Amino acid sequence: MTAVKSEFPVVGVIGAGQLARMMIAPATALGIKLLPFASSASDSAAQITPCIIGDYTDLDAVKKFAELCDVVTFEHELIPLSVIKALESAGVTVRPSSDSFIYSQDKEAMRKKLAHFNSPRSQVVSTSSEVSEYPVIAKAISGGYDGRGVWKVSSPDELQALLRNNPKLLIEELIDFDYEIAVMVARSPHAQATSWSPTQTIQSDGICTMTITPVPEMRNDLREKAQKIALEIAAEVKLVGVMAVEMFVKGDELFINELAMRPHNSGHWTIEGSRTSQFEQHLRAILDLPLGDPAMTQDFAVMGNILGKNKTDMYRPYLHLMARNPSLKFHMYAKEVRPGRKIGHVNIIGKDLVELRTEIEHAVDYMSGEIDE
Amino acid sequence: MTAVKSEFPVVGVIGAGQLARMMIAPATALGIKLLPFASSASDSAAQITPCIIGDYTDLDAVKKFAELCDVVTFEHELIPLSVIKALESAGVTVRPSSDSFIYSQDKEAMRKKLAHFNSPRSQVVSTSSEVSEYPVIAKAISGGYDGRGVWKVSSPDELQALLRNNPKLLIEELIDFDYEIAVMVARSPHAQATSWSPTQTIQSDGICTMTITPVPEMRNDLREKAQKIALEIAAEVKLVGVMAVEMFVKGDELFINELAMRPHNSGHWTIEGSRTSQFEQHLRAILDLPLGDPAMTQDFAVMGNILGKNKTDMYRPYLHLMARNPSLKFHMYAKEVRPGRKIGHVNIIGKDLVELRTEIEHAVDYMSGEIDE
Repeated sequence: MTAVKSEFPVVGVIGAGQLARMMIAPATALGIKLLPFASSASDSAAQITPCIIGDYTDLDAVKKFAELCDVVTFEHELIPLSVIKALESAGVTVRPSSDSFIYSQDKEAMRKKLAHFNSPRSQVVSTSSEVSEYPVIAKAISGGYDGRGVWKVSSPDELQALLRNNPKLLIEELIDFDYEIAVMVARSPHAQATSWSPTQTIQSDGICTMTITPVPEMRNDLREKAQKIALEIAAEVKLVGVMAVEMFVKGDELFINELAMRPHNSGHWTIEGSRTSQFEQHLRAILDLPLGDPAMTQDFAVMGNILGKNKTDMYRPYLHLMARNPSLKFHMYAKEVRPGRKIGHVNIIGKDLVELRTEIEHAVDYMSGEIDE
Repeated sequence: MTAVKSEFPVVGVIGAGQLARMMIAPATALGIKLLPFASSASDSAAQITPCIIGDYTDLDAVKKFAELCDVVTFEHELIPLSVIKALESAGVTVRPSSDSFIYSQDKEAMRKKLAHFNSPRSQVVSTSSEVSEYPVIAKAISGGYDGRGVWKVSSPDELQALLRNNPKLLIEELIDFDYEIAVMVARSPHAQATSWSPTQTIQSDGICTMTITPVPEMRNDLREKAQKIALEIAAEVKLVGVMAVEMFVKGDELFINELAMRPHNSGHWTIEGSRTSQFEQHLRAILDLPLGDPAMTQDFAVMGNILGKNKTDMYRPYLHLMARNPSLKFHMYAKEVRPGRKIGHVNIIGKDLVELRTEIEHAVDYMSGEIDE
């Protein structure tokens, strides 16, 4: 536990992508200095605020960086656990700690830790003969995101082919779910914890394209159950910071799918949709500041991911969309447009869900170049 | 009129204080690069984002800076009008333009321009013999803010003493007003204009300590009249950007007091209190982007200025306040604490005005050290 600091602290963030970029606004408001550890000066956050440039697998470089910080946190799961542990041994305050972060990095460890929560049946295999029923879901033990590292496998041959590149895979029962949700939770070293209303995540080819909060077809008691589970998991893994708990919903049954121990795409709606955004809450949590109010600012919040396609210029289309709807809130990541890459998102809040969805669908299709008007 | 740009533009801001600092968040979201022109690397905005350091009275330095920008705007009125005009002659897009900005810099020019709006009676004098009735308000023609450059004058001797340091003064009738308000307006080069709900500004020793939006004691028709006047003035002075129109209210009568042609303290509530903050709207306006929705996010928004006093450490008190009320939103300017200096502000939104005022009064008193609990 940290004593109350007598000066505004410096928060180091491993990574300088869009998540670090979106931490800049609340850090600035809170008077906290954010110092991202970037791979390159052209990284999304490095374009806005001074960063340290280096390789996050290089312990010496990360250690030197950590000396400039009062607390170190993450915007991605790619940093080796050995580096995090070495930082901790050197006395650096790392949040979440390696003891927690492993459940975000290692799906095998996560499944073991959360064995008493309702989850898809799972096993770790190294040969296809260990699997008797198909189809199944195969997942890389670590490093997967946005549909990468996750495969639907229909036969032993397919599995054997995957095992050539991945000596060990997590095999999970294929859940024929009704819909997918994510519950964002925050927890501080004092064990104060909050959660936001569950979010429906709508995926296409394994990539989230839209979120709707609260989940429209979910009854209140089921929403509360999902939040309760997410808070229990947060306590179980001793979370410090924010975490996305992704779940499948089938009828009244909830299955734990994934954990991501950082601000997450399924919490982007909170920037305008909640009194306290996931980015502000993450900073408050890792600094052991009292957490902010996670209440929604309106009945519904809809978020659409802007995925790169054939348009390279994003300024003209967003001007058109702003003229069409003065309530759209754009969040651009200042990334080079590449097909399928998340280059921004757009939020809207309001009372009429049908209208909000229509506006967001139009906006992201227009930005990507799927439609011209 | 600017053609639609094919790339995200660079916005230059003369000044790097808290107003430029608070432009960073919406610029980041919009994907626009903000480049402040700072006096020193320790300026409020310069601590967050790369700046050009220089002297804003040095035309060559400002010209070199402007070459890096697609449009240049201001966060204060101190830059000489001659420098702005020279930039314009060199082909730089300056918004608001010198033709407009003069009404924010020169109170004599402003009074002449707005002679047909209801205003305190006024005259420009260079000797005390030109004034026959006392008390009056004397104002420096330019450069005043936060009560500086404004004096209540009760006798010819007092006036004569002031005229020793100020060869010319604007003398205004003393209005025995009921309360003071500010109306924030935004206007784009396309002449699209929006205004926010009028704000009551509560002053102490000429410094605004609190704002309440909408003005509680103002009837709807009078609020609408105030907004209409502010929009008319915006058109009259060919505003591009945002502007505060400060007014005195006496019964049903509105008197124009001051103009400030930039984001303004009386619009700080918009960060959480409006769908579109004054900082985002200023950027949209000067870039000729369609303006955002200025609707309020809640029934009431109360803002309190955090003024430096005897506490130098601001981290411990704000931690205490966050624990007391998870809805408080702090905006710290990362300025050294000096007595009477604005070092931050705190916003709250909600439905119960009495409670909101109590929370803000407690928060600012606690931050300043007026109270210990």
